[in-house]
Amino acid sequence: MSRPLRIAIDAMGGDFGPPVTVPAAFAALAKHPRLEVLLFGREADVTPLLAESDDRLRERLSLCHCEEVVGMGDKPSQALRGKKNSSMRLAIDSLKTLGAHACVSAGNTGALMAMGCYVLKTSPGIDRPAICISMPTLAGTERTYLLDLGANVDNCSEHLHQFALMGSVLSRVLDGVAEPRVALLNIGHEEIKGNEQVKFAAQLIGDDPRLRYTGYIEADRLLDGEADVIVCDGFVGNVALKAAEGTTRLIAFRAQHVFNSNLYTRALGWLVKPLLQRVKQEVNPESYNGAYFLGLQGILVKSHGAASVAGFQQAIESAIVQVENRMVEHLDHALETLAH
Amino acid sequence: MSRPLRIAIDAMGGDFGPPVTVPAAFAALAKHPRLEVLLFGREADVTPLLAESDDRLRERLSLCHCEEVVGMGDKPSQALRGKKNSSMRLAIDSLKTLGAHACVSAGNTGALMAMGCYVLKTSPGIDRPAICISMPTLAGTERTYLLDLGANVDNCSEHLHQFALMGSVLSRVLDGVAEPRVALLNIGHEEIKGNEQVKFAAQLIGDDPRLRYTGYIEADRLLDGEADVIVCDGFVGNVALKAAEGTTRLIAFRAQHVFNSNLYTRALGWLVKPLLQRVKQEVNPESYNGAYFLGLQGILVKSHGAASVAGFQQAIESAIVQVENRMVEHLDHALETLAH
Repeated sequence: MSRPLRIAIDAMGGDFGPPVTVPAAFAALAKHPRLEVLLFGREADVTPLLAESDDRLRERLSLCHCEEVVGMGDKPSQALRGKKNSSMRLAIDSLKTLGAHACVSAGNTGALMAMGCYVLKTSPGIDRPAICISMPTLAGTERTYLLDLGANVDNCSEHLHQFALMGSVLSRVLDGVAEPRVALLNIGHEEIKGNEQVKFAAQLIGDDPRLRYTGYIEADRLLDGEADVIVCDGFVGNVALKAAEGTTRLIAFRAQHVFNSNLYTRALGWLVKPLLQRVKQEVNPESYNGAYFLGLQGILVKSHGAASVAGFQQAIESAIVQVENRMVEHLDHALETLAH
Repeated sequence: MSRPLRIAIDAMGGDFGPPVTVPAAFAALAKHPRLEVLLFGREADVTPLLAESDDRLRERLSLCHCEEVVGMGDKPSQALRGKKNSSMRLAIDSLKTLGAHACVSAGNTGALMAMGCYVLKTSPGIDRPAICISMPTLAGTERTYLLDLGANVDNCSEHLHQFALMGSVLSRVLDGVAEPRVALLNIGHEEIKGNEQVKFAAQLIGDDPRLRYTGYIEADRLLDGEADVIVCDGFVGNVALKAAEGTTRLIAFRAQHVFNSNLYTRALGWLVKPLLQRVKQEVNPESYNGAYFLGLQGILVKSHGAASVAGFQQAIESAIVQVENRMVEHLDHALETLAH
C-alpha cells in the first residue's frame, strides 16, 4: 500500500476558494500518509495559506500556478474553449499530464462536466455522464446512491438505464452490496404512474438480468433506505436534492427563531445546542459531500460550491475512496456490454 | 353575508376516512355559522361518528349515503367509468346537482382529477388543470403558490404559461398582491440553464404583459419568499414537494433519536418539547393543507391523504376561502383571453 495516491485539486473553485480548499487539502494530507496533492490556483491567493501549514505535510503538496479561473456564471462551452489555462482545466488535464489519479473541484458544474467529457472522454457505451451522490438514510446504517443530479436535463429512458447500471456498480464495489436494489424515482409507486420516459425506463431496467429492479419510489422516501440506487432524470434529481436542502434551512431558521423568543427559551436553547448540533451533523449534506461524475474515463469529484473545510475534505475523501477501489475499471467492465 | 355556504365532503377519502373527515367537518361547522356540509359516505361508517356531535351543528350537515368508495390504487379511467356512485363522484356531482359551492376530498388524486374534468369541465383556454398549494416562507409573513404538483406529468411550455396566469390570479385575489412575482423552477438561475420546456416557457411568460416574470428559481429557494408564484412541470413539482416532506421526516426522526440517547438528553427533550412542537407546527405541511385544482369550472380541493383532523379542516378552510373570493369567476375572467 505504499504506492502514491495523487489527487489534483482545483483550489479556486467554489464560493470561498483557497480559504476552504487549501486547509481541506492539508487535513487530507494529514489523514492519508501516502497522499500527494497537486494544487491548481493563483499563487497570490494560495501562497499565504501555505505559510501556516506543517512543513512535513507541505512536502507532499505541489502548487501549480494558474492565472485563469472559471466563474460560476461561465457558460460550459465558453469555459471549455476560452479557459484552457484555468485552475479547473489544468487540474483535470493533470490526470493525463501529471499522473494524477483523481480531480476534485467545487467549481461550475457545467464547466466541469464539459471539460471532464472533453479531456477524460466518456466510458464505452455511455452517452453522457451522470452526477451521483451517496445519501444517508433514516436507518443511518446504509446509504443510497441517487443519480442523475443535473449533469443532463433531458434524459431519455436509455440514459436512465445506464445510470442504473453505474449506480449498481458503485453500491457493489464501495459498499459490498451483492445485489443492489435499484428503484426509479416517480410521482407514485403504482405502475400506471409517471411519464413515458420513466415507464419505458422501468421496462429496460426490469428486463436487464444484471440489475435487481425494485420498482418506483416517491421523493418522500428517498432517504428511507428502501433502495441502494435511485435513478432519475437530471432535472428532477437536482430539484429533489435542492428541495431537501431548502427544507433543512427552513427548519433550522424556524428553530432559531423559536429558541430566540425570550430569555427562558434562550436558556433552553443554550442547553440543547449540543444536541441540535448533533442532529444537524447527522442530516448535514456536508457529511456526504463529494458528488461522483460517473461515466468518465477518470475520477472527477464535484464538491458543493458552498462546502466548508470539512465538507471539501469529504469530497477529497470521496475521490480517494474511488481511486483505492479502482472505480473506473469496475465501471468500464460493467458497461462494456453496453458498447456492443 | 347570510347566504348559505355549501361544501361537499368526500367522507371516505384519505388514509383514515370518516374518523378524520367527520370531526373536521364539525370543526368547520362550529367555526362558520353559515356553513352547510353535504357529507358523502357509507352510513355504517359515518353514522356512529355523528352521534357524538353537537345537535345544533348536526342540523347543518346532511349525510348522503354512497356504498362505493374510490380506492387509492384505482386507475383514474376505471374510477371515472366504474365508480359513478362513489362518495368522491357524488360529492363532485353535487356542485351540479345539489348546489354545493365546492368539494373537498382526501382521496385518489388521479381519480379526483379525472372526475373533476369530466363533471366540472376545464376553464376556457385551459388544456389541463393544475394542482397548486400555498407554501409558508422563511420570512413567515407571505406565502408562495407552487404549481403544478402532479396533475400533469408531461407539460409543455404553454401549460407552464397557463399555470403562471392562474397562480398570479390566486396571489392577487387571495393575498392582495398587486403584481405577483412569477418565477420558473429550474436547476440554475442563469439563463442558459434548464431544458427546452423551461427555456421556452420563460419566453412565453416573460413576453406576457399581464405577468411580472422574475426569472428562474432553484429548488433550495422555494421557501425563501422570493416569488409569489412558482411554476413547474407536474412531475418536478411533485418531486420537490415530496422531497421536502421526506427531509422534514428525516430531521424529526434524527432529533428523536438524539434526544433519546440517555436520561439527561431525555430530560432536556421533555423541557424543549413545546418549543420543538412549535417549530414542527410552523413547518408542518398540514398548516397549509388543501391543494387547489386550478383550471376547473368549479372549486375542488384535494387534502393530503394522511391529513389529521386539523389538516383536513384546513383543506375545508381552503375551499371556503375560494368560494368567498369567487375564485372561479376571477380565473375565468383572467383566462378568457387564452380561449381566443
